[in-house]
Order: sequence, then C-alpha cells, then structure tokens
Amino acid sequence: MKLVKVYVTLKKSVLDAQGEAIKSAIHSMGYSQVADVHMGKYFELNFADDYADLEKDVDAICDDLLANPNIETYRYEILEAE
Amino acid sequence: MKLVKVYVTLKKSVLDAQGEAIKSAIHSMGYSQVADVHMGKYFELNFADDYADLEKDVDAICDDLLANPNIETYRYEILEAE
Repeated sequence: MKLVKVYVTLKKSVLDAQGEAIKSAIHSMGYSQVADVHMGKYFELNFADDYADLEKDVDAICDDLLANPNIETYRYEILEAE
Repeated sequence: MKLVKVYVTLKKSVLDAQGEAIKSAIHSMGYSQVADVHMGKYFELNFADDYADLEKDVDAICDDLLANPNIETYRYEILEAE
C-alpha cells in the first residue's frame, strides 16, 4: 500500500486572506514573532498497491479535483503506508 | 527565520465525511486503486527568528487556534526558512 501526502497551497500571486486573518488572530494572542501565515489543504490518499502509472494518476487527481489550477499549486510525497 | 509546517487532521474516531466524498469523486474519475482519503488543514507559520519558547508557542497556537481539540489532532515540523 502506498500513502500519498498532498499539499495544496495558494499561488504566491494570490492574496491569502485566511492566512492574514489567522496571523492577526495569532498576534492578538500575543505571539508577535509570527511574521507570516499561509493556510492550505492537506490530503492523505491511500493506494491499494503500487503500480506503474501511480504518479501520473496522482497528478491527474490533483489537477482535476484536489487543486484549483487558477489559484492553487500542489506538491506531494509518495511513501510506504504503515 | 523559522518555518513551521503544521498538519491538522481529524482524529481516527471521527468520520471524515469530506474524505469519503473525495474518495467517491476519485472513484468516479476511474481511479479505483484509491482505497482511502483523508482531508486536513495545512499551515505554514514563519517565525521572525528562533527563540527558546518557540515550540511551546507553536503548541499553544495549535491548541488554542489552529486545531479543534475535540475532533482534530495536529503535528508540526520546525524547519529553517529558505
């Protein structure tokens, strides 16, 4: 079994309003050392087994479902599932 | 500068409805090899500099803001910011 960890974040050019809101909340909690906050989505996909096209399929799943190509980018790691 | 990557996911005991919905969407796209999907939140916190209580503060920020202790768990990595 393979575990694919996917990280979807906003493109640098896009204003991260949620990140800004969280940063101001963190500052109001008294943690002024936090200079910047970005928020994204995290997915864990378990694949029943390893197969030749796994990486190609992960790219397709990210491009066509998990990430909005207009405003988001994604990266992923393919690991052995525990 | 330190970059802290935070991963917030649902506790195992909690039904991951979003994960289930995404899994059925992935299956309808034809990728039947995907056995399980879990969705969570991903945060990147940039700390202006390293300091003794950084880890303690990250725990407090996660406990009091980023994660809902009733249904979520979190883990994080502390890295050198690029």
